[in-house]
Amino acid sequence: MDRDVILREVGLRDGLQGHGQFMPTADKLRWIGAEAAAGVSEIEVTSYVPVKLLPQFADAAEVTTQSLRIPGLAVAALVPNLKGAQRGLELGVHKLNFVMSVSATHNMKNVRRTREESLAEFRAIVAAIAELPAGAARPAICGGLATALGCSYEGAVPVPEVARWAAALVEAGAQELIVPDTVGYANPRLVKEVFRAVLAEAGGIPVAAHFHDTRGTGLANLVAALECGVTRFDASLAGTGGCPFAPGASGNIVMEDACYLLESMGLRTGVDLEKLVEVRRILAETLPDLPLEGAIARAGLPRGYAPAQGAAA
Amino acid sequence: MDRDVILREVGLRDGLQGHGQFMPTADKLRWIGAEAAAGVSEIEVTSYVPVKLLPQFADAAEVTTQSLRIPGLAVAALVPNLKGAQRGLELGVHKLNFVMSVSATHNMKNVRRTREESLAEFRAIVAAIAELPAGAARPAICGGLATALGCSYEGAVPVPEVARWAAALVEAGAQELIVPDTVGYANPRLVKEVFRAVLAEAGGIPVAAHFHDTRGTGLANLVAALECGVTRFDASLAGTGGCPFAPGASGNIVMEDACYLLESMGLRTGVDLEKLVEVRRILAETLPDLPLEGAIARAGLPRGYAPAQGAAA
Repeated sequence: MDRDVILREVGLRDGLQGHGQFMPTADKLRWIGAEAAAGVSEIEVTSYVPVKLLPQFADAAEVTTQSLRIPGLAVAALVPNLKGAQRGLELGVHKLNFVMSVSATHNMKNVRRTREESLAEFRAIVAAIAELPAGAARPAICGGLATALGCSYEGAVPVPEVARWAAALVEAGAQELIVPDTVGYANPRLVKEVFRAVLAEAGGIPVAAHFHDTRGTGLANLVAALECGVTRFDASLAGTGGCPFAPGASGNIVMEDACYLLESMGLRTGVDLEKLVEVRRILAETLPDLPLEGAIARAGLPRGYAPAQGAAA
Repeated sequence: MDRDVILREVGLRDGLQGHGQFMPTADKLRWIGAEAAAGVSEIEVTSYVPVKLLPQFADAAEVTTQSLRIPGLAVAALVPNLKGAQRGLELGVHKLNFVMSVSATHNMKNVRRTREESLAEFRAIVAAIAELPAGAARPAICGGLATALGCSYEGAVPVPEVARWAAALVEAGAQELIVPDTVGYANPRLVKEVFRAVLAEAGGIPVAAHFHDTRGTGLANLVAALECGVTRFDASLAGTGGCPFAPGASGNIVMEDACYLLESMGLRTGVDLEKLVEVRRILAETLPDLPLEGAIARAGLPRGYAPAQGAAA
């Protein structure tokens, strides 16, 4: 299927990780299956972290294995370190999303490492993939630059610092970069500065954007990144992912709203928006305490709305 | 005060017109006074319409008269016809915002006139202003093009139609144009098409944007209009203005969030964001049933946030 942009579901990881209630494995798989059936081509299905840290991902192996059976779906998982990556290699996951923070303080709080130590860990993951036996399936390895658009400890993060760590990840073997607005500080002007700087260091590998809508700027930031040439966007169904320490703060940009925005701009996402909206039912049934955000689910589509037809701008 | 962009409060008109409960006049005036004190330079304070149609505006004369006493505040009011405009002339309001719809169907449903009849009414208002005695204060007369970005009866509205009616209002004497996304159908690509077309017909008079956030695209649309050179934006405190026939649908773009977005992009609004957020209390106290939207009020400002300093892009 021809797509102008790729929307990647991260709700199963980013959306669920801060939610206190365990989502039963069968429901996670219903969610993944329904989104894949709606045309979502890539899903970050879990995180390979110690169960005692994040019990939500106790079923990481089962979720990964079952997701890998869905034809055509790219199955990704977040990994904070080599140990997590090794689990991914054993499971045969398609893509490892490694994350480090550009902010030294945030990196230390988040993974208890200096940034240099995180980079060394990333290199070790790249080496572990290289050492897989000939003929073995190799996962793609992506480098994530958390706090690239601002940090709740350090405030503004200098753009040259973002560029420097982007270059370091590329040099170390990243096949894709992910630039997240981890705490929802971005604005469209900053997005353009940061993404242009990162794209200049990317050496042609894809650069993806991961926005949180904490301060209402999420979709405006998406459009700003799009104008820089970015075509891969993380989002979560119903905008799950509110930070547990900021009640009411919204999480990732809403998948359905991002899909609507892009399609209405003439950009093909490959996703059937009406089927996508239907998937919200699974969340509502399974996790009744999880707040479901989203404007399109609430307001409905405009009269005469038609998805993009391939004559994209 | 130097401003790069002008945010205009329309909540007292657009926000309240669909709300069933009358907001006491004293509270409206507290709201207006507090926003003016926060630096908001222009407020659409009421609508000159028959009381039996919109009892919310039964106090239009009192609200106008008292608002006009606030130093430095531009006091605007919506007028659907000559009769309403004549009330504005009597009261000495600074600005008359006349509205007609580009969609013939919407215009008929909204004001029971053909578009040609609305244009004739607009000409009559311009003539009435011209006939004011020499030396009398003359209000500015603005032409609003409702449904310019889509219509809930007709669906997509052809851009050449928008341009045609923009040109007609300019030729008839409009001193400013207002382009509203009446039903929240706009996307950034369409915004750029429509605003470029309208700006091409505007002959140098200001063109303002009025977005609803019904489908989550409000701030993205604002940025798109900004990129076309638009610097006047309508918004409402706490995003009031949800359509009474679409429960939960949000109304105008949220004033506080628009202020945050613009200031964080380095554009001076002249508005003190923290004081603006405080004004929400007046709404909460007075109209407890009115849903208060807004990300900044919920999430707070980023660490290290500073308003724009005058080195705007």
